[in-house]
Amino acid sequence: MATPTATTRPSPERIFSTLTAYQQSSALKAAIDLDIFTAIAEGASTAATLAAKVGAAERGVRILCDYLTIQGFLAKEGDCYALSPESNVFLNRHSSAWIGSMSDFLTDPGHRSNFEALAQAVRKGGTPSTAGDNTKPNDELWVSFARSMAPLTVAAAEFIAGLTGATEGMPWRVLDIAAGHGMYGITLAKRNPNAYIVALDWPSVLEVAHENAHKHGVAHRYTKRPGSAFETEFGNGYDYVLLTNIYHHFDMPTCETLTRKVHTALKPGGKAITLEFVPNEDRVSPPLAASFSLQMLVGTDAGEAYTFSQYEKMFANSGFKKTTLHPIPEMPQQVLVSEK
Amino acid sequence: MATPTATTRPSPERIFSTLTAYQQSSALKAAIDLDIFTAIAEGASTAATLAAKVGAAERGVRILCDYLTIQGFLAKEGDCYALSPESNVFLNRHSSAWIGSMSDFLTDPGHRSNFEALAQAVRKGGTPSTAGDNTKPNDELWVSFARSMAPLTVAAAEFIAGLTGATEGMPWRVLDIAAGHGMYGITLAKRNPNAYIVALDWPSVLEVAHENAHKHGVAHRYTKRPGSAFETEFGNGYDYVLLTNIYHHFDMPTCETLTRKVHTALKPGGKAITLEFVPNEDRVSPPLAASFSLQMLVGTDAGEAYTFSQYEKMFANSGFKKTTLHPIPEMPQQVLVSEK
Repeated sequence: MATPTATTRPSPERIFSTLTAYQQSSALKAAIDLDIFTAIAEGASTAATLAAKVGAAERGVRILCDYLTIQGFLAKEGDCYALSPESNVFLNRHSSAWIGSMSDFLTDPGHRSNFEALAQAVRKGGTPSTAGDNTKPNDELWVSFARSMAPLTVAAAEFIAGLTGATEGMPWRVLDIAAGHGMYGITLAKRNPNAYIVALDWPSVLEVAHENAHKHGVAHRYTKRPGSAFETEFGNGYDYVLLTNIYHHFDMPTCETLTRKVHTALKPGGKAITLEFVPNEDRVSPPLAASFSLQMLVGTDAGEAYTFSQYEKMFANSGFKKTTLHPIPEMPQQVLVSEK
Repeated sequence: MATPTATTRPSPERIFSTLTAYQQSSALKAAIDLDIFTAIAEGASTAATLAAKVGAAERGVRILCDYLTIQGFLAKEGDCYALSPESNVFLNRHSSAWIGSMSDFLTDPGHRSNFEALAQAVRKGGTPSTAGDNTKPNDELWVSFARSMAPLTVAAAEFIAGLTGATEGMPWRVLDIAAGHGMYGITLAKRNPNAYIVALDWPSVLEVAHENAHKHGVAHRYTKRPGSAFETEFGNGYDYVLLTNIYHHFDMPTCETLTRKVHTALKPGGKAITLEFVPNEDRVSPPLAASFSLQMLVGTDAGEAYTFSQYEKMFANSGFKKTTLHPIPEMPQQVLVSEK
């Protein structure tokens, strides 16, 4: 996608498709909300049977399912619809990998209005939101994030557990900064029965993390520390500090302030584990990681997706010995390990 | 896109990209509104020079241009951005094929809110808009359509002129129903100096068509007939009746009512010329034509994109001898010619 070939004869078709791409988001969101994918998994296959099952008009279901077929989320044979492999795994509620819940956060109305004011964000160089950027306490947004995005974290959380050798069972104290749903710290605690987690986030968000800690049987090794990462006392002597999806909200000087505080909180030889969208140095590849900066332009005052060389320099400035980069298979994010 | 391959290992990446596809629309719309493409065409190539030229923040322009590069609308070399071939032809105001104006209609806020209520449209089987569907008089919307979509019509209008042999200069009376910007009828009048056009649409929309007729030097052969296609007297003895992008707003019985009225208005041997999105009989291909039904689900009470067999039957029922289908090269729409 990044390099248009000069030999293609220009056609306005892709400009048209891009200007109407918001319709793709709406169609998938509507199908998830109506739970069409689960209804198909349960055996309804025609517009008429699906409509009866999900409580909608046959004509509406037919047109929506045709559109989802065009987009590749369904297959159609005669008048019968079937799930694509990805819909079957990720959008069918009977699948353990169901991620339908993330549609609420990804299509959050506030985030959408920020995007509708993108020209204004470009003029200003930061979020157009008058409600303040998304780094301020905003319990409702982050509780929605914590509730809806947890299923997406499994691959990255297990990857971090593997990278840190959690199953070796060494006694660990882990600080999970901006814990959200808490699943990164909770996964470490599940894999390492001798890990104790201190989770930091806004109070109402920590309630979601605590619910998850209970659900996964690690609540007795889980401590809540409510507040801002910049103002709350971390404590010290940690083996690991988790920094998952936090740096991209801030400018580099702010990130460095946080990183110095993390350095102080770690014991010698302790490690900061950062989960981030890390574009290549060209900032336009790979597509998903590099695209993430636009979300931060509209949603924050000064955040973006930083490159590895920027992170490397920041961790070195903050006193870390060395930082290494670890791609997560088939995920757009990467893990940075920085050793004190 | 229509046939997911069973061998692909399912990944949630495309679900994520689709749920956030609205961001692509916003990015392209913002770049068109800021006129970034024209600024690059005029020689600005870095984020700093572009920002100065378009009156925006360097950081905002850099992040937006990186995103446009990822989407293939720009190329990037070091810190310099360049236009892709399609951006150069269609999004640079110095190009005669500039179509930037269509972004206003395609991302119309009313249309976007309808899409945000798509689940409701599917339940109901028609537009969720409480303001009424888009077949009612709605001068503001259709004036916006007429003003912003005219540049997109050139290829189809010239194709129709070629198909009808306009340049042979036969004396013609042409009725252009729901004329909009008027460019289909106006193009016939330009190619055939002996063609007289009667244009029918809402009064304020006809003003736009009339401006265009003036601009193209055919106003002396251009008559306005304000009103609804269903209520206004057509007159009779026409050589051609143009039905461009009108049928998809209505259900089939309503389309047939209109078609019978068209049949009466034509002289013997006269032809109805229909321009439409005509999906294949499977209703899921080709992608753009088949996708169009979803727009009609959210925007109308009962419209959609009909297949050729549906049109063929409707024209036959209305008394036409035969109907033929003519694809327009490199355009998503097709032309139907129906002979009385």
